[in-house]
Amino acid sequence: MKLTFSPGSPFARKVRIAAIELGLIDRIELVPAAVVPGQPNDDYSRITPLKKLPVLILDNGDVILDSYVIVEYLDELAGGGKLIPASGQARWKVKSDHSLLQGMLDSMLLCRYENMVRPEPLRWQAWADDHWNRAWAGMARFEADAEALARPFDVAQIGLACVLGYADYRFADCGWRQAYPKLDVFHQRMLQRPSVKISLPPPA
Amino acid sequence: MKLTFSPGSPFARKVRIAAIELGLIDRIELVPAAVVPGQPNDDYSRITPLKKLPVLILDNGDVILDSYVIVEYLDELAGGGKLIPASGQARWKVKSDHSLLQGMLDSMLLCRYENMVRPEPLRWQAWADDHWNRAWAGMARFEADAEALARPFDVAQIGLACVLGYADYRFADCGWRQAYPKLDVFHQRMLQRPSVKISLPPPA
Repeated sequence: MKLTFSPGSPFARKVRIAAIELGLIDRIELVPAAVVPGQPNDDYSRITPLKKLPVLILDNGDVILDSYVIVEYLDELAGGGKLIPASGQARWKVKSDHSLLQGMLDSMLLCRYENMVRPEPLRWQAWADDHWNRAWAGMARFEADAEALARPFDVAQIGLACVLGYADYRFADCGWRQAYPKLDVFHQRMLQRPSVKISLPPPA
Repeated sequence: MKLTFSPGSPFARKVRIAAIELGLIDRIELVPAAVVPGQPNDDYSRITPLKKLPVLILDNGDVILDSYVIVEYLDELAGGGKLIPASGQARWKVKSDHSLLQGMLDSMLLCRYENMVRPEPLRWQAWADDHWNRAWAGMARFEADAEALARPFDVAQIGLACVLGYADYRFADCGWRQAYPKLDVFHQRMLQRPSVKISLPPPA
């Protein structure tokens, strides 16, 4: 299998962590890909019209997306129920927590594009603020959710580690550790896992 | 159960269609909600920090998001395997097709925000073009995918109907019917389903 990948993509990082934790990383070739909003990448658009990282390309050529569905696929390949509870209320809590984190990452990337990629005279502060507020309010939600931070390792916790790592990578001065001390403790604990540590984004 | 809803939201429409098809619509109260990028909505942000439609609020207060996870939840409530194949290669094809359509809708909404909501002097044509191209290339992908258009009714077909309905609603002059005649036939066939017809967006 091949996974399109960039070391700075929090979505690709999530899949990489999952693949390591599930014991599948040796079966996956990481294929570097670069995508920038506003710039075409015709080769990559032929793989996925969304021009987003990551996708998983199976040996038969099938393409699996998005990052969450890839984790589901790998989880099933590893026997099922490893990173996503197989049934019951816990299943929907983990899935909904993950969707929230996915949306937080989407908003953080929109902020990043607004503040760094868009030509400076075209930036709209209200848009950047709105999306940053979504990510920040999402962090507050998890700061107050002791269950989400303490339960067995799952895809939502991977997502939260990727959110916090992306905050360090692209919003180094945002002060999330001071605002959310329980997330700081959580993040330090996550970093004890080799999968989380090895996949940290490169220095910005 | 309560579903936060707006008649113009393609994501809310997807869940509404699914709920009708699964025979669950009578158990769901549609709760109107209005969200606009760049404008706060503190009441709604307390329900979901992402400030996005829709979320499903269960009778015990649990909140399920996003629209895809809600469809999965409703599908399971209806017995499972109705709108999402329960196993095998078909499962991953439908899920990946749906992820592609979800990303197409995300890009179409970003286009809409860029062209209509953002203050006119701050608009960036390369951004709008990039996102429109993702949606347009995605339509081309489905135009060429006879299997996706012909298989039994599923969540990806619901997503495609919502993409095309949103194109009519917000990009009425884009010419998708001329460019993609097989999608036109597909859309006409979808409109024969009461769930798809009743949920059409209001006149723009």
